[in-house]
Amino acid sequence: MKIISSTSNQYIKSIRKLSNRKERDRSGKFYIEGLRLIGEALRTDFPLESILYSSDLLTSGFGKNAIEEGRKKGVDIIEVTKEVFQTFALKDGPQGLAAVGIQKLVSIKELHNLKGLWIVLDNVQDPGNLGTIMRSLDGAGGKGLVLLGTSTDVYHPTSVRSSTGALFSLKIAKMNLANFYEWNSRENMPIIGTICGEAENYRKYDFPQDMILLMGSEQKGLGKELLEMCEGLVNIPIVGSVDSLNLACAASIVLFEIYAKRQNR
Amino acid sequence: MKIISSTSNQYIKSIRKLSNRKERDRSGKFYIEGLRLIGEALRTDFPLESILYSSDLLTSGFGKNAIEEGRKKGVDIIEVTKEVFQTFALKDGPQGLAAVGIQKLVSIKELHNLKGLWIVLDNVQDPGNLGTIMRSLDGAGGKGLVLLGTSTDVYHPTSVRSSTGALFSLKIAKMNLANFYEWNSRENMPIIGTICGEAENYRKYDFPQDMILLMGSEQKGLGKELLEMCEGLVNIPIVGSVDSLNLACAASIVLFEIYAKRQNR
Repeated sequence: MKIISSTSNQYIKSIRKLSNRKERDRSGKFYIEGLRLIGEALRTDFPLESILYSSDLLTSGFGKNAIEEGRKKGVDIIEVTKEVFQTFALKDGPQGLAAVGIQKLVSIKELHNLKGLWIVLDNVQDPGNLGTIMRSLDGAGGKGLVLLGTSTDVYHPTSVRSSTGALFSLKIAKMNLANFYEWNSRENMPIIGTICGEAENYRKYDFPQDMILLMGSEQKGLGKELLEMCEGLVNIPIVGSVDSLNLACAASIVLFEIYAKRQNR
Repeated sequence: MKIISSTSNQYIKSIRKLSNRKERDRSGKFYIEGLRLIGEALRTDFPLESILYSSDLLTSGFGKNAIEEGRKKGVDIIEVTKEVFQTFALKDGPQGLAAVGIQKLVSIKELHNLKGLWIVLDNVQDPGNLGTIMRSLDGAGGKGLVLLGTSTDVYHPTSVRSSTGALFSLKIAKMNLANFYEWNSRENMPIIGTICGEAENYRKYDFPQDMILLMGSEQKGLGKELLEMCEGLVNIPIVGSVDSLNLACAASIVLFEIYAKRQNR
């Protein structure tokens, strides 16, 4: 079997380019790194174009099994030298296992007759926050995520890593405000907004069984149009010197409040 | 008044070096950037060695007031050119206001007869997580933080930024395991550990009024010695595909559970 040893190989070049959002948007692909994430992608049958590995770096038996599993599923398996691997690896001391995933966004049409807990984020800026919110949403039994506005990319390497694989399980969609409005008019799923200002204490709120938790950006919160779409508004009262919480922490606190209340029903 | 225009000025060089932990440890100083953080440092009378600004970048009235306030408090005020400012600025498009802070750790002796809610973190690795935990701890009315083991640096620029100023208000200490053991034997404050494994559901736990919430590292959780010091252990039950939550999110969920229960007493 041929091992890619040239750092200027066309496919290797195309992988390095996936660090760039334009290139991810254009190609519909994204980069995945590490044993755990790739194991999770395989477990959930997430579409992978290729798995790349370096024998020199990949010592883990789990990693070798992942390659076998990928091969059985028809994923291209590509061996590269350690030097080549290091040209696209994001992590210092990489584990020697990476993959190219195929972006899998759900269309608005498919988002029909939704059940359960969903989150909609408007203009979220930080890919680490986005990935961490997916992780908490999945952990709290949430079904999916809709990104509005000029949000950061769900397939940004930091988002992918921070999600610890939640992005392979959750349904994910992107909409502009007009689409979201139209979709909401059709589906009529209750939207509960989380804001920093005057609102009901999240601990006292009676969250519906099927619902959308709506949150704004790190800097600006929710705009007027979105606020008007909310059936209810909750806040997290805080004390101390800080004037707000980190977006992913705030989302996690409310998501696990909703989760806990469901357990008690 | 003299404006520093040389990027190789000795003091400017020393500021750039503060991005390095060794240099922070050696000098006992750290770098602070941005209007909000510096405003908060001044508001809380946190010790600052100097405030640096660039007239070309600093357009905010709030920033100009901060300089005046710093001057009144006896902080050295140093004007630099835009070019010089950009050599140490961390942010693209900096606001033109930065400061050098004096590290302010509390000694073990001062940590006597503690009241309220404290958090102890063992081997936390990510400075963003550490800063975000300080932000949530402060927001939940917590008093302070103890770092054990080879934790990341509380004065790392990412920790400082993520704390959004909470690190200026909280009491912060560092201890090794032996110190922590000795301190705990003396103070006898109840320690509640948060773990991923078998433990009591955090929602059902009756947290004491004065307590330490103990959490382990992102990768390894709590070691045996620390587990044995705990009066109680709690976990956050999760579902979905992920096997744990982000450390800062998990800390926030438990901190706000404790906070909410206190409000209801």
